Amino acid sequence: MALTGVLRPGHVQIRVLELEPAVHHYVNVLGLIETARDEKTKRVFLKAWDEVDHHSVVLRESDEAGMDYMGWKVDSPASLKKLAADLENCGLCSDFSWVPAGEHPETGERFRFTIPTGHVMELYAERKIVGNGCGTDGPDLNPNPWPDGLKGIAPHRFDHCLLYGDDLDGTVKVLTEVLGFSVAEQIMAGPNKDFQIAAFLTCSNKAHDIAFVRQPVKGKFHHVSFLLGSWEQVLKAGDILSRNKVSIDIGPTRHGITRGETIYFFDPSGNRNEVFAGGYYHYPDKPTITWYEEEIGPAIFYHDRKLNEAFLSVFT
Amino acid sequence: MALTGVLRPGHVQIRVLELEPAVHHYVNVLGLIETARDEKTKRVFLKAWDEVDHHSVVLRESDEAGMDYMGWKVDSPASLKKLAADLENCGLCSDFSWVPAGEHPETGERFRFTIPTGHVMELYAERKIVGNGCGTDGPDLNPNPWPDGLKGIAPHRFDHCLLYGDDLDGTVKVLTEVLGFSVAEQIMAGPNKDFQIAAFLTCSNKAHDIAFVRQPVKGKFHHVSFLLGSWEQVLKAGDILSRNKVSIDIGPTRHGITRGETIYFFDPSGNRNEVFAGGYYHYPDKPTITWYEEEIGPAIFYHDRKLNEAFLSVFT
Amino acid sequence: MALTGVLRPGHVQIRVLELEPAVHHYVNVLGLIETARDEKTKRVFLKAWDEVDHHSVVLRESDEAGMDYMGWKVDSPASLKKLAADLENCGLCSDFSWVPAGEHPETGERFRFTIPTGHVMELYAERKIVGNGCGTDGPDLNPNPWPDGLKGIAPHRFDHCLLYGDDLDGTVKVLTEVLGFSVAEQIMAGPNKDFQIAAFLTCSNKAHDIAFVRQPVKGKFHHVSFLLGSWEQVLKAGDILSRNKVSIDIGPTRHGITRGETIYFFDPSGNRNEVFAGGYYHYPDKPTITWYEEEIGPAIFYHDRKLNEAFLSVFT
Amino acid sequence: MALTGVLRPGHVQIRVLELEPAVHHYVNVLGLIETARDEKTKRVFLKAWDEVDHHSVVLRESDEAGMDYMGWKVDSPASLKKLAADLENCGLCSDFSWVPAGEHPETGERFRFTIPTGHVMELYAERKIVGNGCGTDGPDLNPNPWPDGLKGIAPHRFDHCLLYGDDLDGTVKVLTEVLGFSVAEQIMAGPNKDFQIAAFLTCSNKAHDIAFVRQPVKGKFHHVSFLLGSWEQVLKAGDILSRNKVSIDIGPTRHGITRGETIYFFDPSGNRNEVFAGGYYHYPDKPTITWYEEEIGPAIFYHDRKLNEAFLSVFT
Repeated sequence: MALTGVLRPGHVQIRVLELEPAVHHYVNVLGLIETARDEKTKRVFLKAWDEVDHHSVVLRESDEAGMDYMGWKVDSPASLKKLAADLENCGLCSDFSWVPAGEHPETGERFRFTIPTGHVMELYAERKIVGNGCGTDGPDLNPNPWPDGLKGIAPHRFDHCLLYGDDLDGTVKVLTEVLGFSVAEQIMAGPNKDFQIAAFLTCSNKAHDIAFVRQPVKGKFHHVSFLLGSWEQVLKAGDILSRNKVSIDIGPTRHGITRGETIYFFDPSGNRNEVFAGGYYHYPDKPTITWYEEEIGPAIFYHDRKLNEAFLSVFT
Repeated sequence: MALTGVLRPGHVQIRVLELEPAVHHYVNVLGLIETARDEKTKRVFLKAWDEVDHHSVVLRESDEAGMDYMGWKVDSPASLKKLAADLENCGLCSDFSWVPAGEHPETGERFRFTIPTGHVMELYAERKIVGNGCGTDGPDLNPNPWPDGLKGIAPHRFDHCLLYGDDLDGTVKVLTEVLGFSVAEQIMAGPNKDFQIAAFLTCSNKAHDIAFVRQPVKGKFHHVSFLLGSWEQVLKAGDILSRNKVSIDIGPTRHGITRGETIYFFDPSGNRNEVFAGGYYHYPDKPTITWYEEEIGPAIFYHDRKLNEAFLSVFT
Repeated sequence: MALTGVLRPGHVQIRVLELEPAVHHYVNVLGLIETARDEKTKRVFLKAWDEVDHHSVVLRESDEAGMDYMGWKVDSPASLKKLAADLENCGLCSDFSWVPAGEHPETGERFRFTIPTGHVMELYAERKIVGNGCGTDGPDLNPNPWPDGLKGIAPHRFDHCLLYGDDLDGTVKVLTEVLGFSVAEQIMAGPNKDFQIAAFLTCSNKAHDIAFVRQPVKGKFHHVSFLLGSWEQVLKAGDILSRNKVSIDIGPTRHGITRGETIYFFDPSGNRNEVFAGGYYHYPDKPTITWYEEEIGPAIFYHDRKLNEAFLSVFT
Repeated sequence: MALTGVLRPGHVQIRVLELEPAVHHYVNVLGLIETARDEKTKRVFLKAWDEVDHHSVVLRESDEAGMDYMGWKVDSPASLKKLAADLENCGLCSDFSWVPAGEHPETGERFRFTIPTGHVMELYAERKIVGNGCGTDGPDLNPNPWPDGLKGIAPHRFDHCLLYGDDLDGTVKVLTEVLGFSVAEQIMAGPNKDFQIAAFLTCSNKAHDIAFVRQPVKGKFHHVSFLLGSWEQVLKAGDILSRNKVSIDIGPTRHGITRGETIYFFDPSGNRNEVFAGGYYHYPDKPTITWYEEEIGPAIFYHDRKLNEAFLSVFT
């Protein structure tokens, strides 16, 4: 975790146009597990099987696809309080509020704020731990390596989001200077290679926990990504997507950035999903990997060595 | 093998525009092993590591890319003689000739003929067996599962070719009725699904040893394919191709037809190569798998469920 | 297939001590599909998902574990008749009989005989083809690469058996000279390496369809083997076996012979099962691979380089 | 990293009986890269390819195999100073000393101490970063996913050690209370399951960075472990070990604890090595996984469900 106490991406709330097709997609095809519904706010709460927390993905019915917000688990109420104050004081964020405990089921109060790229973020310290279903004599006792009865692609966990926005500098500053993230990889443009057009940031030993691409928009959502255990599971994911006639964007292929083995596809509302495997361990003393803009092709899609048409133009 | 004694695709002679870049590609990137050169005819002979025969791929310098011919190993001189006579008598082939022993190094005489789609084919019964380099106490003694010192992608063997031509009916008739092949899979068009537009044929337990797509051309070459041992090797192939800046056509992905896990790319002369893993065992009593033309997308590229632009338009 | 028309191992009838635990093992853990029962003879008929024939494994309740017989599919009634005559005339086999059509469901008449190692073998030419469940518009129309709803380990097919017996020379002679098999690999003992103690034989392009180890017994059964699609599926098999507390003999590991990636385990009656992936293509002109007896360790278990205790001593 | 600033296992110094066979093993078979030698102290310094630090494994010629010490990288000189003071004051450790900068090449000063199980540990804040060889335009610029020219098994990094010692309680207390580690998994014995006999601890998001088994010895070394990228690489590791006649202890198999896919083997001096893939992400708020002593079989070797003879008895 970051020294600030930020542990991981804990949830993402995604807007979908119709709830039932979305639930079918995220449960039967992607293979998340429904853990709660909130009829009043038209929300469904889901978790990936290997997460121990009550939920990580929230689907909300809405007129427009996209991401409502992303939430970060911090290690303690004390860290939550300190980080909230730091964010309020950093001069870079806006729209601060406290969401009361219980607004998400089994979850404590959340501190909400908007970062310079226009994305709403949250921090929270408490969520019920429900286990991953592997324990044979209790939730964490004598586990099998994976539980029975998984459906669909069945990723291990919600891993990260890639977001599009304009003020990349401001957002990177908040994440690194206030929240303690590192920039694991970046794409640099300009004659002096000093204009950052994409940043992949981590608060952990993962190659990335969140990423941003500079685009002249506010608060846009490129994809939500889920972790698989192997390249063979990426193949199987492609098979499952095709069988279910899910629209695949690109893949299976490899990313140059993070080395991830990946496939991109769309949920019924047009939100992009990714499942991926691989990557490497990041440590805060590891130098940032830099890609030059002219190498953006292999940076994003290492095999094709060029962006596909949709990468920059399709987002929600 | 087929009951006629046809064993396998034994060689393919490919035309390349310049020999040295081609040799670099097929040896250092694809990972074949050079076994002989013929300076007079500007040819280089190569084998894949796991083949025991002296060579399987022949590169010939020429002004135009494409395939000169494909050769089939038969089980005996007697079968060779009988099949030559059958071909001459079947009324479907043309341009018969006997190529003398030694025209290919370490190879007996070859019977050459042209099939209705305009492709030159050969049969031969004798080629020196040189071993695959796995034996630790002799060529076939106490082997390791793979030899030391492989380069590049290092496929196990030359597996099949896909060819484009017009008289598909005639060619399929020759292959099935004279040479004893089975149609493992086919694509059917027309209101009654009775117009065959592609046929995947086998003389063995492999899902295919050769394939044809009906196109208004004569003697054209879509790709030559090499066998890998796993889907992970397909990923590694993609990595090696990208590192060497080899132009990738499509993949990694899965074929619907044969279920193969595949990546397509181009040699420096524009000839398409494939490396693939997977597939299934075919037996002559297994019903032909039929794909309808409207399912040609998933038939060819199961994940994308549509042809890429190059599939039908780029060939040599 | 062999030039004699022998296509493949088509069935194996295995004796189990209690039918229900056996069915649980072969259906829910191994993942075969039950296709018929014969209450009178206390038999259950099963197939692997990727086989198109009605059944391949028959479980028969009995007081003693082991193998009743193995059956081979031949390409035509004519081949069946000819091979039956050849077997009766070869002077090496005994106990000939014709089993009437229908004794196995959906199966034509079978010719039964005993080979010199004491094993009962059968040939048959007809069995109903039921398909593999992949077709989306009919049994062989527009298939997916694998069907929905598989259970347990879910191998592709019944692949081969390894048998123990005394007169290895006689049995190899019958298989090669009468039935047209090749010896793909062998283990040789003695000061001159001329005493064959194990033979791996094939009637196809598979590395083996049946294998024998010389032991001073008659008609004994070492294991029945099923084909998986990848090394990752071998891992998953190990996980499924452990979760179900199935006794694992050895593995995951690699065989030197055939290069197979393997795991051995026992059914509830003590019959050894194998699931494996990998191997290579055999052709009849490929030289036999020879292992010396002092290399029997890596020949059988390539990683450990020595036999485990059970390999020679535990059989049924 | 831990909130204390402890980042990762940074080095291990291993005693070997003869330097040259050891270097052959660690360089040509395991596939580490030699980065320095110290003739005076008879030491060779090595790194795994994907580590960016100057070295991680140190081999020292000695009369007795085993581990001299393990070193931990911390995030800053300030953390180093604070942790040194905390360790001196905690009342659990002994034999404190400062090793001057340069005693390891390209490395700052190290704080050395002995933990209650008798193992010597070190903390350090500075080591030259040399890169992983993937960058194509500089050490961290436009990288390929893996470098050319790797030898042998070629693991990504030195991952963890498993150590044997008596005062497990004291050592776990130091690691968790002073150094900020979490217990990711443990094995508990006794009628009330309250006697810890093994602990797997992490200072990061890895499932373990170090592990201890309670045994009536001081300062003993069970194995040093290196990270691979996939289960297929575990197979290939087994193949490489067999080809080189390296003694394999067990594997390929799966651990229940950490879910790792593993193979154990011995260096020429009898020190146990492991290469493994897989595992899961640990976070400090994840409950400790507990295994009961009666489940120690599947905990250690999930497939076999029992310890092999060597696990408890062979160490250095």
